[in-house]
Amino acid sequence: MNPVDFAMPKNSDPNPMVLPPDQQAQLHRFLEQLRHDAELEIGYPVAFDFDYSALTPFLSFSLNNAGDPFMPMTYLLNSHEFEQEVVAFFAGLARAPQDNWWGYVTNGSTEGNLYGLYLARELLPRGIVYFSQESHYSVGKNLHFLNMSHIMIRTQPNGEMDYEDLRETLRIRRDAPPIIFANIGTTMKEARDDIRVIRGILDDLAIENRYIHCDAALCGGYAAFLDPRPAWDFEDGADSIAISGHKFIGAPIPCGIALARRGHVDRIGHSVAYIGSVDTTISGSRNGFTPLLLWYAIHSLGLEGMRRRVDDSLEVAAYAEQRFKDIGIAAWRNPQALTVVFPQPPEAVCHKWQLATANGLSHIICMPHVRREQIDRLIGDIVQAGETGP
Amino acid sequence: MNPVDFAMPKNSDPNPMVLPPDQQAQLHRFLEQLRHDAELEIGYPVAFDFDYSALTPFLSFSLNNAGDPFMPMTYLLNSHEFEQEVVAFFAGLARAPQDNWWGYVTNGSTEGNLYGLYLARELLPRGIVYFSQESHYSVGKNLHFLNMSHIMIRTQPNGEMDYEDLRETLRIRRDAPPIIFANIGTTMKEARDDIRVIRGILDDLAIENRYIHCDAALCGGYAAFLDPRPAWDFEDGADSIAISGHKFIGAPIPCGIALARRGHVDRIGHSVAYIGSVDTTISGSRNGFTPLLLWYAIHSLGLEGMRRRVDDSLEVAAYAEQRFKDIGIAAWRNPQALTVVFPQPPEAVCHKWQLATANGLSHIICMPHVRREQIDRLIGDIVQAGETGP
Repeated sequence: MNPVDFAMPKNSDPNPMVLPPDQQAQLHRFLEQLRHDAELEIGYPVAFDFDYSALTPFLSFSLNNAGDPFMPMTYLLNSHEFEQEVVAFFAGLARAPQDNWWGYVTNGSTEGNLYGLYLARELLPRGIVYFSQESHYSVGKNLHFLNMSHIMIRTQPNGEMDYEDLRETLRIRRDAPPIIFANIGTTMKEARDDIRVIRGILDDLAIENRYIHCDAALCGGYAAFLDPRPAWDFEDGADSIAISGHKFIGAPIPCGIALARRGHVDRIGHSVAYIGSVDTTISGSRNGFTPLLLWYAIHSLGLEGMRRRVDDSLEVAAYAEQRFKDIGIAAWRNPQALTVVFPQPPEAVCHKWQLATANGLSHIICMPHVRREQIDRLIGDIVQAGETGP
Repeated sequence: MNPVDFAMPKNSDPNPMVLPPDQQAQLHRFLEQLRHDAELEIGYPVAFDFDYSALTPFLSFSLNNAGDPFMPMTYLLNSHEFEQEVVAFFAGLARAPQDNWWGYVTNGSTEGNLYGLYLARELLPRGIVYFSQESHYSVGKNLHFLNMSHIMIRTQPNGEMDYEDLRETLRIRRDAPPIIFANIGTTMKEARDDIRVIRGILDDLAIENRYIHCDAALCGGYAAFLDPRPAWDFEDGADSIAISGHKFIGAPIPCGIALARRGHVDRIGHSVAYIGSVDTTISGSRNGFTPLLLWYAIHSLGLEGMRRRVDDSLEVAAYAEQRFKDIGIAAWRNPQALTVVFPQPPEAVCHKWQLATANGLSHIICMPHVRREQIDRLIGDIVQAGETGP
């Protein structure tokens, strides 16, 4: 199948979209550089073990999923049919209440988190957002955007929210409805806030008017496969959840899934004549290719394939933690985490391996593409840098 | 070049990402359906005459352009180098002030408009947004999001802002700084608000504390090539501009360019240790593939190719307008518009040709892929529907 046999430029030039030689060379150099850099990419939460080449024919169309994926649309070049399946699949993983959920494929979890906070603001206009100090940097940006009051909560050393600090802070502000922004995997340490514990605190304080949003950008792709299962989903008490698609599932384009209780969403829908649809999403025009990517991954891996991928990744993470310890470095992981945290190595090592670093800590994240051989090379580089001095 | 020779799944299965037969069939049906529907797509502002197949190798990587494209980034699998060129190109088309502009590639113009309004809110916290009643539906959503005061201005019959209504409304509210949201191509009629006229009104009223954002989603891709040139860009008085990439340029994935005066942007930057960058954008993780698409289009078409594409499209639009008139239908266009407006045809025709319809009006938009032969078929369908009755 020729991926471009649809495109029919109306001018007579048979090759109207060919690059000049300089740009061809630039593009080629970039591809070579990417191949090199990708081989050393074990520091960020993005999986690389995908092969979506079967989907390239769809890049010949101007796909657009504008509006609610569950509503009909005048513009027919959309992949709503696939988007619905993707959202339903993740709603299942997140144990959404039967017939009372809604969602769409986002451009990533910043959008999914913005969506959850937006819903919360509409439901609780006088609400205060509580989020831990190890939350992703975009949370503050989102809150500023939405003009929402907020209070930062301390974290425990492992990165998890300090529940006692949360309890005390809530106790003295029982007049304003709390909106809890929970991390299901913090950026640096993959710490998971326990929303069952949080719900218990809210119950204790007799706070009934409340909202819990889970930022499951990192762990939402595999939390359902962990045993014991973290407390992160709708059955555990979430009102909305953001999950990234390009992280654990893996995709060449950032994407994610926003999920929410249907009743919440119905409050913000506006009927829009122009697109012949109801637009309850944040974007206008929406990516129709990323839903195909996620759909493809789900169906080609299958539930069992996904579970195996999680188990394999956990084994690599355990291996990495042990290898660090073997050379005398105090590496550690949160329970069932793919993220291995360790003291910041010398600058050259951080640069070579693209290691994210904050407050003297670095990490690697054992996403499904990470191989033991890469861990060994990183360990070798750290040992060598230690011998040759900083 | 094999587009997937990088991807190396770590399990031993040589084909870990192959679909089950049912899903393969579903995907195949979808592709056939898209081919059919695309042939009848002349009603929305999206060009189809692209061929980006040379870029498929880049879909083997998890590209991510998080943060400011003009700042270095720890994560090396980004296409910032290409994004910079794209933004600079459009800054040139929009006559941005030398060394005083900034921008990034967005997920579409809803994001670009949100960005412009966000900047305006930060600069003029007590500002009131003025936008015409024929603005895109997302504007109201964005303003609600950002919690900004706003006043809707009447439009003239051609869809352009009613400048007298604007003047009168501004005159009685000179205490609150105005934020003008100008349409450079309204959704239904491609009417262009004239920001030189708007600036004249503001000058007349001695209102110096003001902001003008241009929603050039539709026309930003070709306004610079029109003669006379519409008043839409930085030299004409814009403070920020949103342009869509998937509309006139054409792309399989919605995208756009947000542009703003550099001085405005500097007010909202936050340094973010985690990504080793300053994040002045709205998204967190950002698409690294769409900048490559736009870069490819710019360089393969070239300035002259772009100009020719605009001229060709204008000719097709003139042809379409005349064909409607030939059969006695009162079709019309704004000056130098690609959008041909006409009374809503029978339902079956609207459905077949995916015609957007509002308030009894429909339109076709003569994007570069639209061929005279398609216009003839549409006209034939309308004539036939008229003969057979509604």
